[in-house]
Amino acid sequence: MDKNRQFLLRKRPEGLPTPDHFELIEAPVPEPRSGEVVTRTLYLSLDPYMRGRMNAGKSYARPVELGAPMEAGVVGRVVASADPGFKIGDIVNGPGYWADYSVHKAASLRKLDPSLAPPSTALGILGMPGHTAYVGTIDIGKPKPGETFVVSAAAGPVGSLAGQIAKIKGARVIGIAGGPDKCRYVVDECGFDDCIDHRMADFAEALAAACPDGIDIYYENVGGAVLQAVWPLLNRHARVPVCGLIAEYNDVAPRPGPNLRNLLSNRILMQGFIVGDHAERFAAFFADVSNWLRTDRIKYREHTVEGLENAPEAFLGLFSGSNFGKLVVRVAAE
Amino acid sequence: MDKNRQFLLRKRPEGLPTPDHFELIEAPVPEPRSGEVVTRTLYLSLDPYMRGRMNAGKSYARPVELGAPMEAGVVGRVVASADPGFKIGDIVNGPGYWADYSVHKAASLRKLDPSLAPPSTALGILGMPGHTAYVGTIDIGKPKPGETFVVSAAAGPVGSLAGQIAKIKGARVIGIAGGPDKCRYVVDECGFDDCIDHRMADFAEALAAACPDGIDIYYENVGGAVLQAVWPLLNRHARVPVCGLIAEYNDVAPRPGPNLRNLLSNRILMQGFIVGDHAERFAAFFADVSNWLRTDRIKYREHTVEGLENAPEAFLGLFSGSNFGKLVVRVAAE
Repeated sequence: MDKNRQFLLRKRPEGLPTPDHFELIEAPVPEPRSGEVVTRTLYLSLDPYMRGRMNAGKSYARPVELGAPMEAGVVGRVVASADPGFKIGDIVNGPGYWADYSVHKAASLRKLDPSLAPPSTALGILGMPGHTAYVGTIDIGKPKPGETFVVSAAAGPVGSLAGQIAKIKGARVIGIAGGPDKCRYVVDECGFDDCIDHRMADFAEALAAACPDGIDIYYENVGGAVLQAVWPLLNRHARVPVCGLIAEYNDVAPRPGPNLRNLLSNRILMQGFIVGDHAERFAAFFADVSNWLRTDRIKYREHTVEGLENAPEAFLGLFSGSNFGKLVVRVAAE
Repeated sequence: MDKNRQFLLRKRPEGLPTPDHFELIEAPVPEPRSGEVVTRTLYLSLDPYMRGRMNAGKSYARPVELGAPMEAGVVGRVVASADPGFKIGDIVNGPGYWADYSVHKAASLRKLDPSLAPPSTALGILGMPGHTAYVGTIDIGKPKPGETFVVSAAAGPVGSLAGQIAKIKGARVIGIAGGPDKCRYVVDECGFDDCIDHRMADFAEALAAACPDGIDIYYENVGGAVLQAVWPLLNRHARVPVCGLIAEYNDVAPRPGPNLRNLLSNRILMQGFIVGDHAERFAAFFADVSNWLRTDRIKYREHTVEGLENAPEAFLGLFSGSNFGKLVVRVAAE
């Protein structure tokens, strides 16, 4: 009989986690109770927000308990169902675990149609990261034609889509990414007007030079030194959707934010947001982005790691930017 | 013939200004050209924002030039008019100077009716500070019944009205002010639910104790240590209208702001704003606040300094909180 390998949270990190914060165990494959569905994991999503859930303190999601399985969005194939809405063989997306198998409430799952898009896209361009990019760009950033839109982590799943949406809305779009390969991708494939490598010694000067008219919207994914370089370039009435702060997630002591006199003088809006609050925008997001994908107006890229056993190392790589595109783990073949 | 005493900006301050940053000179009383009006200053408004205008760098208003007269909102009596809309003896409000006389474009003035409200209120509760409180509270803070609304500089013209408006809207309102007299006024006269003295050693603990359900709206007038105490108390979906940062205006080097992880986790909105962008809300503000004044639902307090020659010292007192209520200089008798 098959076993269910799964990663538990073994201890809480101080600072950057290491592989020994996770523990791989084997458990029996779960059985569904009434209203539940069991899936074989095909793809596991690894995302920066998971770092916050490893802490004990309250974040925007409740913490994972010590000794409990690490949670993740998954794409899976139904292998057992005790719900009339799902049958064996269905391909579904929903919240699950860093595991070979997950048991789900049926109501938490959505069925995917693999003839419309590769199932892994439900974890990226057509899933939570895409929805996040859409809400932050359209509803908070509100780029207007001719405005300058800057986005950090621009080669990532959220940043690359945010910038492409801003281009569709008529903005001039500048990405910020780590390293020449990512910058080239952002400009050549995603069609951004420019992309600045934040690892360059003259990053702040290069960013200023790329934004001669200042910055009207800064889509924030990283915080830290990148935000410090952006801050003095913000224009009057600038909007800063704060989507993520990956450069700060491993800080042991909270680092200070930017001086607020600029926020006052320039009437800047900063808005922290979490896509879970914006479920009512999923349908519009999905319709628009599906359409833009179909008509080849947007590109996306996935970074696929093979094998559940490699999930911790892949996750830790998010914090040094070793992924290039949406990070997913292929746990089993489709 | 009468002379026109006026204060010029003599040098730009580094840090806290002193009286020798200003120079009192005598000039001839101006004559109006076509479309202009000359007023005898009755009341001169002194406001924290003027500190920013003493710097060379761009702020939300253009800097006062070195050697140019210090600018201010004034209430004056028309003594010469070259505009058909104004006649000698009219009492008006508009932008003018730290001076015995100001010359104005007629279009920049509004006529006051002294039978409706004391003319000095055009510089406070029924003028720019009141309008500021209204926009920040109603349009950005949006207090809902039962929410906790906190405002700093709560005995000042903006803070005291902001809190009273939030009370009218059904919020629980906590003020922050400097010293027991101001705190008593805020509670006993303005009807706040509580007021915490930021000069107390245990200020942060006392604020937390006064906000057992956290803070839903923080109307920011001061920045610095007060903001640091408020920041960890902010609730999910909190709103922070940033109206002023008086504790930071004399900083030589910009001080860091609050860590942004809280802004992200709690989906906090921060919005810098300047009332000049919201002229379209003046009529609604004026109608509502006039009505609340008439029906005795709100209180206000003015701190009147006698004599133009005392304007610099009075202005500098704003930064140590030596005023108690809206600071105006009475330059001439009504």
